[in-house]
Amino acid sequence: MAPDQGHISASVEVYEQGEATERASDQIAAECAVALVYQGISHAVMMASPMQLEDFALGFSLSEGILQQASELYDLEIVEAEQGIRVEMAIASERVAALRERRRSLTGRTGCGLCGAESLTEAVRPIKPVVAPQLSASAVQRALVALPNHQPLQQQTGASHAAAFCNSQGEIVLVREDIGRHNAMDKLIGALQGSTQPLSEGFALISSRASYEMVHKSCAAGIGALVAVSAPTAMAIDMARQAGQLLIAFARPGRHVIYHNPHGSP
Amino acid sequence: MAPDQGHISASVEVYEQGEATERASDQIAAECAVALVYQGISHAVMMASPMQLEDFALGFSLSEGILQQASELYDLEIVEAEQGIRVEMAIASERVAALRERRRSLTGRTGCGLCGAESLTEAVRPIKPVVAPQLSASAVQRALVALPNHQPLQQQTGASHAAAFCNSQGEIVLVREDIGRHNAMDKLIGALQGSTQPLSEGFALISSRASYEMVHKSCAAGIGALVAVSAPTAMAIDMARQAGQLLIAFARPGRHVIYHNPHGSP
Repeated sequence: MAPDQGHISASVEVYEQGEATERASDQIAAECAVALVYQGISHAVMMASPMQLEDFALGFSLSEGILQQASELYDLEIVEAEQGIRVEMAIASERVAALRERRRSLTGRTGCGLCGAESLTEAVRPIKPVVAPQLSASAVQRALVALPNHQPLQQQTGASHAAAFCNSQGEIVLVREDIGRHNAMDKLIGALQGSTQPLSEGFALISSRASYEMVHKSCAAGIGALVAVSAPTAMAIDMARQAGQLLIAFARPGRHVIYHNPHGSP
Repeated sequence: MAPDQGHISASVEVYEQGEATERASDQIAAECAVALVYQGISHAVMMASPMQLEDFALGFSLSEGILQQASELYDLEIVEAEQGIRVEMAIASERVAALRERRRSLTGRTGCGLCGAESLTEAVRPIKPVVAPQLSASAVQRALVALPNHQPLQQQTGASHAAAFCNSQGEIVLVREDIGRHNAMDKLIGALQGSTQPLSEGFALISSRASYEMVHKSCAAGIGALVAVSAPTAMAIDMARQAGQLLIAFARPGRHVIYHNPHGSP
């Protein structure tokens, strides 16, 4: 499987009530272990769709606070390994020092990096405040109606999530897809670094639920409003309140629900 | 929020086309950082629904290979912390030694446990072979039709996944819910330890997609068949082939698709 391919073909057997069970061909979403490696330090492994990994690595680095800005990523190489794909990055030396320090200080206490005695504190990180736009219902609805046409992997496989950035009129500016909703958001954040879009004026639209991490990642990128097709969690609402982010969920053509609006109720 | 509660109330504003936007009350799924701690070693943190955490901790320990059998878990205490919940476990001393060794050997190379230079190897672990049952289409369909009535958290919040175990006739025997699909499966595996169900004769039914990890976890528990309401990934199909697990996906009332059947094609 080439690392830029999102899906493969497979032979399947379809059961349909009242019909003879029949063989068919189906498009299946690829899934691949992707290791993010900084100056030789392998920091995390995620199961992901193996395309647009440059966007993914840059977006993850920014949304997880490993990099402070895109210019701190000097070089990126995608290496196919037996068990998956390694994305090997060269980053600014201050950031390498900060990553080593973060890992060492946790290691000293607990023997491990991201999962130590300080792990709850590490898992629930402080959230970055954002400036929320005034969004019209028609802008939200316009983007919702257009989203399915921007999800080719989902149309092929039915197995992927999308994260889109939309301007204040509800026009979809950029979309990324992945089998993982966090990964789709990280890919979007990475891809947005090359654009001149003012991130506090538009909104992110996600085909999935709005959990704590979706709010956290979008706020880390400076996105002032998050619109989710499916449900929010209680912690996502708490985080949106803390950050001042506009949070809309259960957003379907014709109807959406506002869970936090810094410009008014609720 | 009490650690046994799956949802809370919130005030929201509903936009409906052609209607005045109105305030309403909504039930929101709780989401909480849960740290799994073995003999003082904090091993992993997951965002989860804060109920049935005993099942979750036992199921995770078994599906991730930290414990080999349920009897190796000696004691379990749920501690509410400022940032989340710690599940503190006392486990058999051989298992503590194995966990320390697993973490130390990785630490030596890379400074971190689960995310080291060996991380791709660690992420894509060998899969345990299972014995697949012969399942009738009517058993699969019967369970599918019944599932929504066994999802109270989903009915309240629209934000959660379910993992059910069904016997060979398609009767739902046990269900667990969580905002995370992996967590729902781990809770189910934990809860099944107290039952006398022969796991190789029935099947697991999940309301979500079938990814690599869902196949891996269910095989680790000895479950011979996995039925998913949504799509499979290519890696899930590969893993099911390797393990000899029956894999059905896109399973809806009236229709389902067989992706791997060890007793026949495909």
